[in-house]
Amino acid sequence: MSMTVVEKILSANDRLADQNRARLDGAGVFGINIMASPGAGKTSTILRTIKGLAASNIRLGVVEGDTAPVTIDADKIIAAGMPAVQINTGGECHLDAVMLGGALPQLPLDEIQLLIVENVGNLICPASFALGTHINVLIASVAEGDDKPYKYPNIYRGIDALIINKIDLIPYVEFNMDYFRRGVEMLNPGVITFPISCRTGEGVEQWVSWLTEKVRK
Amino acid sequence: MSMTVVEKILSANDRLADQNRARLDGAGVFGINIMASPGAGKTSTILRTIKGLAASNIRLGVVEGDTAPVTIDADKIIAAGMPAVQINTGGECHLDAVMLGGALPQLPLDEIQLLIVENVGNLICPASFALGTHINVLIASVAEGDDKPYKYPNIYRGIDALIINKIDLIPYVEFNMDYFRRGVEMLNPGVITFPISCRTGEGVEQWVSWLTEKVRK
Repeated sequence: MSMTVVEKILSANDRLADQNRARLDGAGVFGINIMASPGAGKTSTILRTIKGLAASNIRLGVVEGDTAPVTIDADKIIAAGMPAVQINTGGECHLDAVMLGGALPQLPLDEIQLLIVENVGNLICPASFALGTHINVLIASVAEGDDKPYKYPNIYRGIDALIINKIDLIPYVEFNMDYFRRGVEMLNPGVITFPISCRTGEGVEQWVSWLTEKVRK
Repeated sequence: MSMTVVEKILSANDRLADQNRARLDGAGVFGINIMASPGAGKTSTILRTIKGLAASNIRLGVVEGDTAPVTIDADKIIAAGMPAVQINTGGECHLDAVMLGGALPQLPLDEIQLLIVENVGNLICPASFALGTHINVLIASVAEGDDKPYKYPNIYRGIDALIINKIDLIPYVEFNMDYFRRGVEMLNPGVITFPISCRTGEGVEQWVSWLTEKVRK
């Protein structure tokens, strides 16, 4: 595929992302795009976030991106009492602005203040497609190893916050936090990080406070 | 992008994959394509395999697929005494037959009996591109959770063996082996599985014996 075709696809995507953003802004909804490898804890983090926001008056909606028509993740969100819409990409490796644009009308945008989009589990392709959300958040799991920023630099460059999940596993895996952080800092100087454990709840409060502030701004 | 364009790309890829296969067959080399999420343990498994094959007279070469020009993985293989070539995909999310075809002449095919290709860390895109290797192997890490076959079915359908890595972490993560295996069995009935721990070495012997038999056939 020629570079020109790729560029045209990306620029069409950017225009649609702008439309999604305008729609969210019009409804007063703050949107975040959560990206990660498969199994890094995207859904678990969203469930912890829902719990953490329970005491606030922030209501949220979730868009679940999946490559297959299984509603495992969307079902968990709905069970937690929040509206969720699934996008089945039909094998595609990322969400794009068209897909999100199709999902937005299915959510009660006037009743929510926060939209969380869970992208397809993939450290590569989602980085190239803006969705129109306000911030991009990456979740890295310590079980994946400390060399991921060096190997998947593009996704680290474009994020506004980094959640380092599964810190309860640090004693059982080889993960040098200094080496990991040096890689992150090189690609995205000063990016805010939240070491958390969705399993134990450690660190979740800091993430939820930061997010609350962003939503209320 | 229209379906026709995608089909044309894939069919061109298949023809080149056949050429790669012929080249491997001509040199008497058995080729395996290892796929996995980022951080599931592809390089660690290859290093364990090199160690496990040390007593045999099988020599191997490795092709390392990376999205960035870092040679972290290739350096580890070379340090373990085996020839390795890196393919930097320049951000692309998978290897394809053209890339492998370009790497093969850089390896001493006449001196090796086994070629291990480490694909880019991704559970989606690599499944669509045949490389010309003889078998496809998927590595799943228990830290990724037990629902991955249900969420990323395509890659599970096309594999000849499944390595279940990081079994030493089972006590510390939520991983229901029965649920995981039911998902795998549904997609790929009877596929052989190797539960292993690259950290402790558990289960590696069974994998290496099976692979040795494949190479010697």
